Amino acid sequence: MTVAPKARRAKRGAKPDANPPTEPERAALFNFVVSLADDALVLGHRLSEWSGRGPMLEEDIALSNLGLDLIGQARLLYAYAGEVEGKGRGEDDLAYLRDEFAYANLLLVEQPNGDFAATMVRQLLYAAFMHLYWQALQTSADARLAEIAGKAVKEMAYHVRHAAEWVIRLGDGTDDSHARAAAALEELWTYTGELFEMEEGERALAQTGVAVDRATIRPAWDATVDRVLAEATLQRPAERWMQSGGRSGRHSEHLGHLLAEMQVLHRAHPGATW
Amino acid sequence: MTVAPKARRAKRGAKPDANPPTEPERAALFNFVVSLADDALVLGHRLSEWSGRGPMLEEDIALSNLGLDLIGQARLLYAYAGEVEGKGRGEDDLAYLRDEFAYANLLLVEQPNGDFAATMVRQLLYAAFMHLYWQALQTSADARLAEIAGKAVKEMAYHVRHAAEWVIRLGDGTDDSHARAAAALEELWTYTGELFEMEEGERALAQTGVAVDRATIRPAWDATVDRVLAEATLQRPAERWMQSGGRSGRHSEHLGHLLAEMQVLHRAHPGATW
Repeated sequence: MTVAPKARRAKRGAKPDANPPTEPERAALFNFVVSLADDALVLGHRLSEWSGRGPMLEEDIALSNLGLDLIGQARLLYAYAGEVEGKGRGEDDLAYLRDEFAYANLLLVEQPNGDFAATMVRQLLYAAFMHLYWQALQTSADARLAEIAGKAVKEMAYHVRHAAEWVIRLGDGTDDSHARAAAALEELWTYTGELFEMEEGERALAQTGVAVDRATIRPAWDATVDRVLAEATLQRPAERWMQSGGRSGRHSEHLGHLLAEMQVLHRAHPGATW
Repeated sequence: MTVAPKARRAKRGAKPDANPPTEPERAALFNFVVSLADDALVLGHRLSEWSGRGPMLEEDIALSNLGLDLIGQARLLYAYAGEVEGKGRGEDDLAYLRDEFAYANLLLVEQPNGDFAATMVRQLLYAAFMHLYWQALQTSADARLAEIAGKAVKEMAYHVRHAAEWVIRLGDGTDDSHARAAAALEELWTYTGELFEMEEGERALAQTGVAVDRATIRPAWDATVDRVLAEATLQRPAERWMQSGGRSGRHSEHLGHLLAEMQVLHRAHPGATW
């Protein structure tokens, strides 16, 4: 049962729109917000897998905190997506109770942690993008997204600094740490193309100023990544064929394992009041 | 190689003691501080095991934050213990590079998470004690311990509130949630006797005002626990034979698994500069 957008907005205390969104517009917004939430949830979960396994107590805490930032962002986004959808699904329903093919996260964020170097390279590639993306989204025509962006941009600025420091320390470190960082960079680079892909719905949202044209992020992302890699004495990988499919639900087997672990308890107590 | 206490204190900028501690006094202080650190580390790690497995996104974040509080307390305590020992061992050496029998944590905190109800009952029993204990330790004759207590007492006040809310919600909830909470309480109660035990060294430290006589905590702990159990419609378990041995390194098999998981990465990179 779908609640009309007018009723939903009225309930939230806002003035009813002169031109309420059409059903396809609403579906596009829902899909877009969920895709951002899925990125944050999946990467947040990956970072939390380091709990108690970090190379140092201090870094253990740091990784957990990065993970909590992302899971916090996911919560805000899922809650908003649920309102947009207007079918009564809340953050937990969206986070836990969907099938694997409904998750729209980037393939980059579902990649296994690998060693600490791989985790930090993955974090740098994602955070360098999202920091710029949230920065741009602060002026979104959608007030809720602009508000979420205002919070997330500060967190991602810290993620970029933290990941960049480590990538530099590892790349410009021992032979072993350099080799690990270089191998991780080569392997993960193939997932960076997807950062700049846009489906039809997101493209339409960018035209109305709700989303951001991802291509406009490219020069600044290149600059950040190139600066860090240069300091880390790491070679930027050559251009190549890029992996794709996460946004349309075609995931690697890694996501299935991650979701199974994440969902097991929630599914065991569906709708639990405790 | 042992650094003399006088040299160590001078290095830290404090005035050299008129009566520097004897070697047995220093060993007792080291053991005492490490036992508090081990409690916090092991329970912090247990809570972090919930990452991505919580019944709700919100509670997932809450449990991670409780875990981070405890790991933060452990770091402060290990760092201080390392200084007391004066052999150059730092927080990571003490947290990761000891054998199982050297861990002096309470058996209570190494118990497996079980279901969410068991985790919350365990948290209540421990936090209700430690909140009162840190409160008392704020006036320790040892300035560093008093300082750590001042930070930890605020965190544990929150842990008590959070755990109490959940135990009440579960106990006074559905038949199923009540049964789970009651079963957890029965099982974990046998580990509460150890909260009040003191080894010879700690007893001596309590006499000089460095540690706190744990028996003095009992009435207030009883009052807190009884109040929560009453609201939760849970029966306080009958007095019984109590488990003991954690403080002297006699642990259940659960601690071995936990330490193995925690130590695997650190041991793979001993003294890693990255």
